Amino acid sequence: MSAHTVVAKYVIETSLPLRHAAEVLAGEQSTGTFVRVARESDDLRARFAAQVDSIQEIPLTGSPPLPGAVGDPSERRRAILKLRFPLDNFGPSLPNLLAAVAGNLFELKELAAIRLLDLDLPAPFADRYPGPSFGVEGTRRLMGRTEGTMIGTIIKPSIGLAPDELAELVGELAAAGIDFIKDDELQGNGPSAPLAARVRAVMPVLERHADRTGVKPMYAFNITDDIGRLEANHDLVVEAGGTCVMACINLIGLAGLDFLNRHSTVPIHGHRAMLGAIARSDQVGIGFRAWQKLARLSGADHLHTNGISNKFYESDAEVLDSIAAVREPLLGLTPTVPVLSSGQWGGLAHATYAAVGTTDLLVLAGGGIHGHPDGPMAGVQSMRDAWASAARGESAEDAYAASDALRRATESFGPVRV
Amino acid sequence: MSAHTVVAKYVIETSLPLRHAAEVLAGEQSTGTFVRVARESDDLRARFAAQVDSIQEIPLTGSPPLPGAVGDPSERRRAILKLRFPLDNFGPSLPNLLAAVAGNLFELKELAAIRLLDLDLPAPFADRYPGPSFGVEGTRRLMGRTEGTMIGTIIKPSIGLAPDELAELVGELAAAGIDFIKDDELQGNGPSAPLAARVRAVMPVLERHADRTGVKPMYAFNITDDIGRLEANHDLVVEAGGTCVMACINLIGLAGLDFLNRHSTVPIHGHRAMLGAIARSDQVGIGFRAWQKLARLSGADHLHTNGISNKFYESDAEVLDSIAAVREPLLGLTPTVPVLSSGQWGGLAHATYAAVGTTDLLVLAGGGIHGHPDGPMAGVQSMRDAWASAARGESAEDAYAASDALRRATESFGPVRV
Repeated sequence: MSAHTVVAKYVIETSLPLRHAAEVLAGEQSTGTFVRVARESDDLRARFAAQVDSIQEIPLTGSPPLPGAVGDPSERRRAILKLRFPLDNFGPSLPNLLAAVAGNLFELKELAAIRLLDLDLPAPFADRYPGPSFGVEGTRRLMGRTEGTMIGTIIKPSIGLAPDELAELVGELAAAGIDFIKDDELQGNGPSAPLAARVRAVMPVLERHADRTGVKPMYAFNITDDIGRLEANHDLVVEAGGTCVMACINLIGLAGLDFLNRHSTVPIHGHRAMLGAIARSDQVGIGFRAWQKLARLSGADHLHTNGISNKFYESDAEVLDSIAAVREPLLGLTPTVPVLSSGQWGGLAHATYAAVGTTDLLVLAGGGIHGHPDGPMAGVQSMRDAWASAARGESAEDAYAASDALRRATESFGPVRV
Repeated sequence: MSAHTVVAKYVIETSLPLRHAAEVLAGEQSTGTFVRVARESDDLRARFAAQVDSIQEIPLTGSPPLPGAVGDPSERRRAILKLRFPLDNFGPSLPNLLAAVAGNLFELKELAAIRLLDLDLPAPFADRYPGPSFGVEGTRRLMGRTEGTMIGTIIKPSIGLAPDELAELVGELAAAGIDFIKDDELQGNGPSAPLAARVRAVMPVLERHADRTGVKPMYAFNITDDIGRLEANHDLVVEAGGTCVMACINLIGLAGLDFLNRHSTVPIHGHRAMLGAIARSDQVGIGFRAWQKLARLSGADHLHTNGISNKFYESDAEVLDSIAAVREPLLGLTPTVPVLSSGQWGGLAHATYAAVGTTDLLVLAGGGIHGHPDGPMAGVQSMRDAWASAARGESAEDAYAASDALRRATESFGPVRV
């Protein structure tokens, strides 16, 4: 990987010859317009034009062409395309990079599918973007969980709890030995439960718990808001003793996350709400592998990957690939913690561990803890028992036999997955 | 429209009963999780649950279900759905609003299509977000074009021009009577043409032109960059006498645009690069009508709508609907200027004017000016002649007969569109 180029990997479909469509894309995203113009010299093209690196044809999937695609549909072909961009075209600026690798290209009528799959970024991006300051090790240190899977939950109901109810719930979860609690992404800074009121309700409970036990569970307050309010929201949390802030990355923007990261003195819990808008279609948008690199460079200490058997659309294979992607090294950045969430409960621990082979994970159960038939304390216990068993190499059956809390969980959530 | 609710309009598809799918969506985006949990009282639901306002079934389109959709495909139905959210759930914060109306919902497996089409936002959003400070009137005043269509261009080649070449080109365009010039969205702040060097090259040319003629064409310098650099980039432009800054809205985020808007003292030219990633599929994402409201609240004085006969995927009907959307009043905000761009040239003026009936437009031609057979000056003249003729109520044939520059343009760009 040259220090002076970016390679972007796409899947495309086109009814034009593949090479021609690839060159339209490369031209539109570097030196070209729809006609050749004055001052567009051969020398300028040689220095600044994006280059077609490779085209690998793959089978069509059965999806129809994107709206507005031109050409004879029966001529349509699908390919993996790699384009190479000179770094000098944009410099190591993520917003300006995106104009080239993920800008107007999604609108090209020559393309019947156009999806950014991955990016190879050179070292200058890591020189400019510090990335996570805490990651796996810093998070473990702050929450006092030096080994084993980090177990967390989301406050449920998502919204509507009064501060005294929230404090009571947090107290129960802390007593149950939870490592991590987060606001729901729907809980922002609205008038019914302002951030300041939540901080006032939660932090004394956690501080008292820490005084008694020596361990302060990490609470990720959702500080998502206008950019001009992020610093104050962060400071409110940190001044009250909070050890984590949560930001919905797509709602403040990747650039907003980087802005927060340069100010933040605690781990940033990166929520992926709205990702489906760009990631769900297999014909258009940006895939998780590309997006997670941008999110990590922008400072996500924790990053939502979804979990197996989730309530969302992704298959287990996609989820496992996302977890693997977040765990791959990236330009020497501090490792980000993959966050498994959505439909998670203790009965998924063994199957997940068998697939990922690590406990450097933050596994969140919302309904899987709050909806446990014996309440949140038993919900936490069922998660802890299951993940500890999996990490010891036991079978799911062993865990089921040994843990009352896990057995009771199966009464609500179905059989343990093996 | 109540001051206390937000109505979000979607198109959905589902193989579940429509009412059931709508309620899953409403629940997921307000009080619910996948099981009912403690403290989720009827009273809490009554106050905070999103409500299904209306469901109107419409025909399927032939597009396949989104990946991961559950249920029998033969049972699939399509509908326009309106959901009503209590404003108190999030308050008048755009990032927190988006968590509810455009967050995790795109990932729901119960939905085989899910696309946000429009938003009805109550007055408190305009109390919090100032929106554009200049809009149509302020832009006309600054560029000295008090009536008639505002004619502009994009610097081409997009990238790679040396500062002296850029200065020369800007001088030609100013001499030709252009109202507006913009950097290409690909021209950010890279090492080959830093913003500071472009400002130093361009502004003296425009100042000298203004000294001679009393009119300073507006140059939109692309200041897109990390959030922490936007203010300095803006100040660099303004201190040199610049009268406009351009931001790629999706690359700095809507929240980044609002951040810039609260600092900016000149019009913000809002570029829509990357919009296709969320807007092109008819099965998932966010449509232009919803997005443009968010962009206007966030401060876009100018907003790209595309133009008819463009080189991108949108049909003329879609483009005209986008122009109409931007021209509709929104919560008393200063009117934003629709920006028609992509494949534009003089021969499209009459057809466009016949459809939109206004000259409160900024029409940009890149190749259509720089690629004119007699060069950029003739390109500008052909645009000016054509739009003036259209606004006078003449036919396209009249304009063709009267304007040498327009006749010559047809030799490169094809017949005038009537």
